[in-house]
Amino acid sequence: MEILITNDDGINAPGINLLAQLMQSLGHVTMVAPDGPRSGQSSALTVNEPIRMKLLDQTPQMTRYVSTGTPADCVKLAMHQLYQNTRPDLLVTGINHGSNSALSVIYSGTMGAAMEGCANGVLSIGFSLDDHSMDADFSHFASYILPITQQILQLNVPYGTCFNINAPTGPIKGVRITRQCKGYWGEEFEKRTDPHGRPYFWMTGRFLNQEPDAEDTDETFLQQGYITVVPTKIDMTDYDFLKEIKTLNSDESR
Amino acid sequence: MEILITNDDGINAPGINLLAQLMQSLGHVTMVAPDGPRSGQSSALTVNEPIRMKLLDQTPQMTRYVSTGTPADCVKLAMHQLYQNTRPDLLVTGINHGSNSALSVIYSGTMGAAMEGCANGVLSIGFSLDDHSMDADFSHFASYILPITQQILQLNVPYGTCFNINAPTGPIKGVRITRQCKGYWGEEFEKRTDPHGRPYFWMTGRFLNQEPDAEDTDETFLQQGYITVVPTKIDMTDYDFLKEIKTLNSDESR
Repeated sequence: MEILITNDDGINAPGINLLAQLMQSLGHVTMVAPDGPRSGQSSALTVNEPIRMKLLDQTPQMTRYVSTGTPADCVKLAMHQLYQNTRPDLLVTGINHGSNSALSVIYSGTMGAAMEGCANGVLSIGFSLDDHSMDADFSHFASYILPITQQILQLNVPYGTCFNINAPTGPIKGVRITRQCKGYWGEEFEKRTDPHGRPYFWMTGRFLNQEPDAEDTDETFLQQGYITVVPTKIDMTDYDFLKEIKTLNSDESR
Repeated sequence: MEILITNDDGINAPGINLLAQLMQSLGHVTMVAPDGPRSGQSSALTVNEPIRMKLLDQTPQMTRYVSTGTPADCVKLAMHQLYQNTRPDLLVTGINHGSNSALSVIYSGTMGAAMEGCANGVLSIGFSLDDHSMDADFSHFASYILPITQQILQLNVPYGTCFNINAPTGPIKGVRITRQCKGYWGEEFEKRTDPHGRPYFWMTGRFLNQEPDAEDTDETFLQQGYITVVPTKIDMTDYDFLKEIKTLNSDESR
């Protein structure tokens, strides 16, 4: 098997190096990772400046490239410059230092990279741990990653669907295949004043769960100590609402 | 009505200024826009550095702020620093110089901003024209924007759904409420060598339509000369596939 790996915490983050080590038991690993932190980069692309990509090192088990791009750029560079007419069998991203449950999926560089692989027709999985610290303890999660990956490799995954997998910090009770929780961030900024008297803002914020009593969301299961697996679509059409409003189609000219 | 406006081409782009002018006939406009181009910024957030936001000018019809942040940052700043405990009645983003049909929705800063408004419970619409040029002609699209907006304001839009609206460059045949086309970008990079002999990459690419024969996609209708309206969800869960694989839930510990 050929496995592509990237992340959004940068090539030196412990999370990606653990993931690369685990994946080597499944096949050859190609890592293309950002040269530093790219948290909150979503599916952002570098369009207004050029991107660098450099071969870092190479063993029979793994080839590592470092890039100045975003996580999605890294996947695109791998697909179109490294693999060209072939495709890897699997893309894994992470392990992210910080959870990407609920609405975080739309801001996450880890999941932006997974969606990019998915759009290219590659089975793609994003792994995240609910701990932002750079010395986060991944050991309890590590033993689940290969079994979950192997189970996903057995599935008949439709085109356009990837996986958003999050693990709790504490002991793991099991695995829950579940849905994205509704919610968003509140109290988002800390306002400060610079030495010249001008204001600036740091993004902070806390998650406002809009369905705290729902038993079947990724947020609930994660808080209860489960690893959550959310099948995630890159087709964002609201088909239910589309059915309702399709009757408004019009041909008149103005 | 209170209307918030942002974009990803920056505060000086003709598209946002036309949109602001149109919206003033519906109510008071607050513009919070990036200080320069932020194309392809998706839902990216500025987390590793501080963000500036400055009052630019103010008339009875419109207040304009300029920000160093991404389009999603601009919406967050507006929600949490300007509106605080209130919310605007409507968020419009664009008019983007360049289409955001098909998979572009996941890369688009215009749609990233719309999704942010939507997550905050605000009716949100992203407008884009299929012409990247800074002197694009918006005149044929302009007469459709208020009628479409007023029609959307009449709808009972569910929480978590916003609108991705794209217009063709040529004469407009009508409006089609439709779905996101399947496809992705190929041949994505132009590789060059700098004067020091080191490679660098410019993102280019062309859209590979995976369903060119489908009659009901945004891509098809746009090519045929229709304005396309795609109801777009921020809940990315693949519910159909979730139903299939839910049986794999497990409680065993490892």
